[in-house]
Amino acid sequence: MTTISILGSTGSIGQSTLSVVESLSDKFVVSALAAGRDLEGLTRQIARFNPRLVSVADETDVSVLKNSLRAAGIDPLPEIAFGEEGLVAVASLEGVDTVVSATVGAVGFLPTYKALSLGRRVCLANKETLVMAGELMTRAARDAGAELLPVDSEHNALHQCMRGEQLSEVKRLILTASGGPFRQTPLEVMQRATVEEALAHPTWQMGSKITIDSATLMNKGLEVIEAGWLFGFGADRISVAVHPQSIVHSMIEMIDGSIIAQLGVTDMRLMIQYALTYPERLPTDLPPLSLDKLSKLEFFDPDLERFPCLKLAYAAMREGGTMPAVMSAANEIAVAAFLDRSIKFMEIPRVIAETMERHDTRPCSSIEGVLEADRWARACAKSVIAGQASQVGS
Amino acid sequence: MTTISILGSTGSIGQSTLSVVESLSDKFVVSALAAGRDLEGLTRQIARFNPRLVSVADETDVSVLKNSLRAAGIDPLPEIAFGEEGLVAVASLEGVDTVVSATVGAVGFLPTYKALSLGRRVCLANKETLVMAGELMTRAARDAGAELLPVDSEHNALHQCMRGEQLSEVKRLILTASGGPFRQTPLEVMQRATVEEALAHPTWQMGSKITIDSATLMNKGLEVIEAGWLFGFGADRISVAVHPQSIVHSMIEMIDGSIIAQLGVTDMRLMIQYALTYPERLPTDLPPLSLDKLSKLEFFDPDLERFPCLKLAYAAMREGGTMPAVMSAANEIAVAAFLDRSIKFMEIPRVIAETMERHDTRPCSSIEGVLEADRWARACAKSVIAGQASQVGS
Repeated sequence: MTTISILGSTGSIGQSTLSVVESLSDKFVVSALAAGRDLEGLTRQIARFNPRLVSVADETDVSVLKNSLRAAGIDPLPEIAFGEEGLVAVASLEGVDTVVSATVGAVGFLPTYKALSLGRRVCLANKETLVMAGELMTRAARDAGAELLPVDSEHNALHQCMRGEQLSEVKRLILTASGGPFRQTPLEVMQRATVEEALAHPTWQMGSKITIDSATLMNKGLEVIEAGWLFGFGADRISVAVHPQSIVHSMIEMIDGSIIAQLGVTDMRLMIQYALTYPERLPTDLPPLSLDKLSKLEFFDPDLERFPCLKLAYAAMREGGTMPAVMSAANEIAVAAFLDRSIKFMEIPRVIAETMERHDTRPCSSIEGVLEADRWARACAKSVIAGQASQVGS
Repeated sequence: MTTISILGSTGSIGQSTLSVVESLSDKFVVSALAAGRDLEGLTRQIARFNPRLVSVADETDVSVLKNSLRAAGIDPLPEIAFGEEGLVAVASLEGVDTVVSATVGAVGFLPTYKALSLGRRVCLANKETLVMAGELMTRAARDAGAELLPVDSEHNALHQCMRGEQLSEVKRLILTASGGPFRQTPLEVMQRATVEEALAHPTWQMGSKITIDSATLMNKGLEVIEAGWLFGFGADRISVAVHPQSIVHSMIEMIDGSIIAQLGVTDMRLMIQYALTYPERLPTDLPPLSLDKLSKLEFFDPDLERFPCLKLAYAAMREGGTMPAVMSAANEIAVAAFLDRSIKFMEIPRVIAETMERHDTRPCSSIEGVLEADRWARACAKSVIAGQASQVGS
């Protein structure tokens, strides 16, 4: 049996992970779950999977969860932790083989680092972790002999394409992007885009932060940086292709000109199971990809004018050091402000660019240095937003 | 240095092989060439590559070639052999590491068998070899530890997709087919198709026999049988998808539902180089596949009513034993008759079906048994054609 813990168990990836674990209950057992504020969802998960340890966002949630568990007749109660310490406890619980890192944003950073340092397999769905500190994370994994397996459909696809290939014989990674809801939307219309329009993702059902990131293509930018760390590729060897059908999840171009692609249904359970069971593949009950779905597949170059976030991500990647962490933090703040209707859609890249411009890049040499840059960027982005808001008078 | 010999050096695959060898002259040297009747082309190849041994189709060609070589100032002359013995001599020349088997039709059968039995790497572009006697060929390769590497774009693509995968985790092979010049042609029009129309292949430049096989989809049928032997798959685990753009060269579906595809430019040099240098990949000077080419990719189910040859191939594969050899031999005769304008296009499958119906399948237990079935099928197909010709009065 493989013992797993899940960071972000009530989110979209967390739920899919538990669905995979349920279907492979002869191979996987859940030891620890860390959730956010969906205590009802967490209660159901605890009733079903009986973990030893759970963690919630805040201390005040602990007693609420206890009551909820008692009301559900759960006895004995699991150990209940909270906050960042709780997340780290879930990631480093003794006896855990595999940690699924599926929180959104910077919160997954420390627990993921801890899990890698302990030599555990980390199935990584949290993009920000590698974006913020790819150097530290991959070094920790190397030093501890930990496996870092991507769950994100694009990176998972790249991992599948690279089985049996030599990294030195891969010329270029080609990440596909659905293009989001504004793929064909004129710039003037994007300026006026509402939260609801931005949340209407054409192919994937995801959380709201990542859905906005898909609409700005920042999601793809974060993935470019992530792919760079996962596979050791520079910005010049990673391309993005807009592919509205989201059937080809990514491709690699070899030095001989051959391209290997991974295709599949748009269901995260496929990637999660792959990361959990690698190098073994196991059957799934997902419907097979039909030929109908394969017609017609389209691929376009991304429009960097309408999607400046992608350009910012490449710039941050080339700059290196603390700059990607700053970019990612500024993006989190800008997206939250857009979701709060404090800024307009096309102000998201402006907030990020302004924050990046104000940043003095330093080497990414310690966790503390990264967290410091992250805090600085959040404060800076907030002040940029406050300045913009006062300027536009909204 | 890897020493290679080429069976069918003046054909399309043979020429592409020599072009690859030329670009990798620090790694490959040509020791022997077997050509058909293009003695001018062979003379140029001898002048350029200086092989020790060459072979021509007939004894009468030997002196013609000698004169041609002397006229070209070549001295000393290579050893010159002819006929089937000459082909076998080229395949089994001492010191040869790799044999490229690129003759068309049954003529490549014995020399390929010989090369495999000697433990040489065989880069196989000759479809009929595995179709006629896959069991004998794969057994000879296994016994002698010979590598059998497919050059055909579809099988080469499958081989690339399967790097790093477990055969037991592959659910299904999906061979793509361009659909040929009659992909969308109504049946009534196909009945009247001329040789010129059938030779107008939309994407690949190939010899005339294989081009007609593409127009009938028998080419894909032969490939289904070939794939079965190469990878150990039964008919139920091999599908065909019509893909007019010929960009995706083939795909594999894994048991978890994931699909791995190989894409590339339609240039045989890519596959030949892959087979020659495997497991290493080397750069090529081929233009990279552009995103433009990737839009739009279409995939359809094949229409077995208009392309009965594909159905016949599946039936022969399921029957096994000598039946695939009989089908392939009858097809060669029928295609030759069509190219001679002795029969109409849609009579090709009728000749094959009639020959298959008259055949008593036997186990494929010896070379002699296969060759006997081959001879029988050729004679039978000819008599079927003679009968049809007299019936239709043409």
